[in-house]
Amino acid sequence: MGEVIPHWLTKQAFLAPDKCAIETDKGESISFKELKVASEQFARKLAEAGVGKGDRIGILSTNQQAMVIAIHALSYLGAVAVLLNTRLTEQELRYQVDDAGVSLILCNDQSTYTEDNWTGDQRLLSFSEIDQFEEKPVILQEELDLEDEFTVIYTSGTTGFAKGVIHTYGNHWWSAIGSALNLGLDERDKWLATLPIFHVGGLSIFLKSVIYGMPVYLLEKFDAKTVDQAIETNGVTIVSVVTVMLQRLLSEREGRRYPETFRCMLLGGGPAPLPLLEQAKKSHIPVFQSYGMTETSSQIVTLSPEHALNKLGSAGKPLFPGQLQINEQGEDGVGEVFVKGPMVTKGYLHNPVETEKVLQDGWLATGDLGYLDEDGFLYIVERRTDLIISGGENIYPSEIESVLTGMKEIQEVGVVGKQDEIWGQIPVAFIVTNSSTLTKEEIDAYAESYLAAYKRPKKIYFVDTLPRNAANKLVRKELLHAIKEDG
Amino acid sequence: MGEVIPHWLTKQAFLAPDKCAIETDKGESISFKELKVASEQFARKLAEAGVGKGDRIGILSTNQQAMVIAIHALSYLGAVAVLLNTRLTEQELRYQVDDAGVSLILCNDQSTYTEDNWTGDQRLLSFSEIDQFEEKPVILQEELDLEDEFTVIYTSGTTGFAKGVIHTYGNHWWSAIGSALNLGLDERDKWLATLPIFHVGGLSIFLKSVIYGMPVYLLEKFDAKTVDQAIETNGVTIVSVVTVMLQRLLSEREGRRYPETFRCMLLGGGPAPLPLLEQAKKSHIPVFQSYGMTETSSQIVTLSPEHALNKLGSAGKPLFPGQLQINEQGEDGVGEVFVKGPMVTKGYLHNPVETEKVLQDGWLATGDLGYLDEDGFLYIVERRTDLIISGGENIYPSEIESVLTGMKEIQEVGVVGKQDEIWGQIPVAFIVTNSSTLTKEEIDAYAESYLAAYKRPKKIYFVDTLPRNAANKLVRKELLHAIKEDG
Repeated sequence: MGEVIPHWLTKQAFLAPDKCAIETDKGESISFKELKVASEQFARKLAEAGVGKGDRIGILSTNQQAMVIAIHALSYLGAVAVLLNTRLTEQELRYQVDDAGVSLILCNDQSTYTEDNWTGDQRLLSFSEIDQFEEKPVILQEELDLEDEFTVIYTSGTTGFAKGVIHTYGNHWWSAIGSALNLGLDERDKWLATLPIFHVGGLSIFLKSVIYGMPVYLLEKFDAKTVDQAIETNGVTIVSVVTVMLQRLLSEREGRRYPETFRCMLLGGGPAPLPLLEQAKKSHIPVFQSYGMTETSSQIVTLSPEHALNKLGSAGKPLFPGQLQINEQGEDGVGEVFVKGPMVTKGYLHNPVETEKVLQDGWLATGDLGYLDEDGFLYIVERRTDLIISGGENIYPSEIESVLTGMKEIQEVGVVGKQDEIWGQIPVAFIVTNSSTLTKEEIDAYAESYLAAYKRPKKIYFVDTLPRNAANKLVRKELLHAIKEDG
Repeated sequence: MGEVIPHWLTKQAFLAPDKCAIETDKGESISFKELKVASEQFARKLAEAGVGKGDRIGILSTNQQAMVIAIHALSYLGAVAVLLNTRLTEQELRYQVDDAGVSLILCNDQSTYTEDNWTGDQRLLSFSEIDQFEEKPVILQEELDLEDEFTVIYTSGTTGFAKGVIHTYGNHWWSAIGSALNLGLDERDKWLATLPIFHVGGLSIFLKSVIYGMPVYLLEKFDAKTVDQAIETNGVTIVSVVTVMLQRLLSEREGRRYPETFRCMLLGGGPAPLPLLEQAKKSHIPVFQSYGMTETSSQIVTLSPEHALNKLGSAGKPLFPGQLQINEQGEDGVGEVFVKGPMVTKGYLHNPVETEKVLQDGWLATGDLGYLDEDGFLYIVERRTDLIISGGENIYPSEIESVLTGMKEIQEVGVVGKQDEIWGQIPVAFIVTNSSTLTKEEIDAYAESYLAAYKRPKKIYFVDTLPRNAANKLVRKELLHAIKEDG
């Protein structure tokens, strides 16, 4: 058993019952007390639908208030939320829910999936369908044990199989506290959430909300104009973004300043190009660059704006409860980045092998390469060599390769990330085929049923052979050279 | 093993090396990096003096920077600081250090005690004497296990024997985080420390300092003019006070407003009289009333200023990680106050009997009586019936009674707290004697060698008998009536 605290939503509803918890661009608003009551009611309906302590329940939804209520409801039952990326194909989704042992999937009312058309073994019910249930008079959790599992979020792995990252209540708690010690806590804060809640960066905003007693301005999807307006006129003080969003916000702003009350543009989801950071600086936008991953429950390293210029390109220093080491350094000081702290996952679901591979004595091997400067600031030199980050989404080449080699006309595939002005990177594929008639369109059509759209190769090159080293391992660097020559 | 975090001073020295950690009214100032270096050096000198992991080391000092350095130094060695009240008699001090198994006492250079005149079995060295030691090249703690013991502070008990309250690093950590979630965190914060550091309320300011990265304005002792000036011109934003200090500050202020930047007068150490709170409200002083004790690592319940008027007299609501229950309620809702949370001590040193008496399943029986109003605000009706709080110091009548009955001329003693305009309460004694010549002066002279000055009866009444109930138990209420009649 870990430390025990009162249920965080119940507590916040007691401390600040009438304070706004969530508001939307559609003019909706819900207080902490209302959020608690709605979540408790939903919990009792879920209990009536058969959900109990320890059950893993899929949540497949775009950003909406009902999704947040469902997540809190599961915490009242001691059930575990398996957050599913709505962009995935049914094939990909089925892998995740099967792997997690999910028996029930909750989806938003607009979902294309229904109980009837879902091909997996799970029950699938919409939020509204759950709302039709009676409330079962079960005892709800009044306390949270920080060592208990709360959420599972899948992340693609180098092996091509997605791995379920387990987050305890404690992981989320310490992430929120680490962020507060870094950014400060102001009672006027309002955090805009436009990142998907099924990613840990989006989810974390709603947990900070109940822990801090802070309203969230919730957007179903990113729209530069709406976000810009919310900052300008709705008192938003903090926004979490990925690079492509920052670019669009900057062009929407056209150099005009944000109000003084806007105090943090938290930038995550992969490295940011220097010109963009310089442009943000010029526009007086307080960008906090950050580095983190699903396994660290969102940011674990952050660069504050006062260092944005003199440490340009750095990811900053680890949050207060976090630690960082560079292991197996080369002569240039570059080595693998290891991180540790109470916000780091205890491991992958049902996967002790992968867990042991990356977690030793509390230290997480990130697979990323980086170095520290003389002041201890982290510079990421290269994300996991085989990781492509496209618009904030992680893509593993091996996953795409393993799908495409399933096509009988394809002999070999090599996938790499191509630099892209808008998305940061996009996946491109090099194909060796023995068919003289295979077309790029046929490959894309095949990929469509296995891979989420953002994962599908945006460009396909037919080649005679793939570059391999003596050990017959694919040499991705040479593929990257080939792209550059291609322009 | 509990959660592990980086050593908090090392971490803050890394995050904000040049930021001021401590400044004094004498114009001294030390940065977090300097504080870290000084504490590490002092740790190595202590190691040379024989201090090692797990050792309990007494600290007997008035508020000064060297004391703070000594406390941090002990944390680098994994040793435990036993904080001693400088107002105690040698007899009282000897009881505590013997009970705690202290082998070495560190005292400030101005202490009346020296290695030569200290009559206990312990070594006693001043901070300056330790400074003369070489630095022993020992490995210092780079991490803190939140379940490890860090400090011991004695608190008088109903039995008359002081009990050593154990605080882990985690207790102090959670106390600091609970307070931050309540008060917010502003990078411009500066907390004035004039409460004794040997009390948990004073100590906690210096741990918040390293956890938040916040400067402390340190005063050796309370002086209304100096505190007033510090708020007016030195950018102090938060001050911790007890009632008598608030009274003096108010009369020093004479109704003038504090600067806008001053945001919190944290009032602890016993109940505050309503007229004082009303006067503070009139002067626009943001008083946060709080309720706590050594066992809760300082405040655990706090009333924010927005409720100061509509909840006048309430202690507020428990901090975010804390919980509160009223047990064995009477018909009027009044019952014993129980609290729970990760800031609550795990128990008393070497005292499983007393520990079990007050701690059950994480719930601490405070012994205080109170009730909750319909909004869940706590009202303390009566502190432990036998507890006297005088100028923020706790006094247990039983301790005084057991000392005075040691005087051969005294047959029986009953001690109670008399209301006092300045100190809140003062101890007064009712004496039954068989001597016709015993004088009040003789009693006071006798008490002087056993009891700290603030504990010695300020008024002595000779009586023929003490009021007792059928079970022969002293009925203190009747003594209180007698005082009132006395005027």
